[in-house]
Amino acid sequence: MEPDPPRDPTQRKHDTLARFDRDLDAWVASADRDGNPYLVPLSFLWDGTAFILATAESSPTARNLQSFRRVRMSLGTTRDVVLIDGTAETFSRETVPPDLADAFAAKLWDARVGATRYAYFRVTPCRIQAWREENEIAGRDLMRDGRWLV
Amino acid sequence: MEPDPPRDPTQRKHDTLARFDRDLDAWVASADRDGNPYLVPLSFLWDGTAFILATAESSPTARNLQSFRRVRMSLGTTRDVVLIDGTAETFSRETVPPDLADAFAAKLWDARVGATRYAYFRVTPCRIQAWREENEIAGRDLMRDGRWLV
Repeated sequence: MEPDPPRDPTQRKHDTLARFDRDLDAWVASADRDGNPYLVPLSFLWDGTAFILATAESSPTARNLQSFRRVRMSLGTTRDVVLIDGTAETFSRETVPPDLADAFAAKLWDARVGATRYAYFRVTPCRIQAWREENEIAGRDLMRDGRWLV
Repeated sequence: MEPDPPRDPTQRKHDTLARFDRDLDAWVASADRDGNPYLVPLSFLWDGTAFILATAESSPTARNLQSFRRVRMSLGTTRDVVLIDGTAETFSRETVPPDLADAFAAKLWDARVGATRYAYFRVTPCRIQAWREENEIAGRDLMRDGRWLV
């Protein structure tokens, strides 16, 4: 089966932003100081400029993002790829801005309450790529150095 | 909507092995020496004991797995998760065992030929986890320390 023709940059950005609003989960890759990669699915909220994540403070992802802020996330499937490189800012239950936690709760759940302590992360993207098949590898960069190219 | 009841360990192993045989792509997380996570979709072959991957020698994944052998892979979706921690052995076009490259070619493509030099990786799993919803978090370990628990 022939793949669809490649989407133009405007369409790719449109599809990507639609996924930011609509999708619930991302694959979130981080690494520890010894170079061990870690990868888990986490729910996210896109607030228009950044991704908000929450995960247990004791989890490897939380420890990795607190000590080393680099994160790489993917949305969608392996044949409709959105990849995001970003930098994470950490908040505790006590330091999270109320607006941020309220917006997260409206889409997902209130991670400020309960026995398990959650950390919030605000991931600001510096690079965003989107492609479906081989014919979309060219032109896959939608954001570089924190700026939309489209 | 209520999630399905949790699968028993035998069913989870069965579903997971079926996915190893049937799926084409995995999300492959690696890290460089500075702790930068990397994540890309790659096609794989499961040979019964290990995953065979191939990617351009010049790619970040190839560089990461050659210098530091730890890899974490996911199959499936964020609501039907299979996660694999493994150790990668690297082969070049010249050093890849012919049987391995032939089996890879039979499912995917012959990565020994062409202008771009590919590296092959044989990823031996040491830990495998599988879960769908929250109610399957308990009992998600199917393999630990390289041994199936089921």
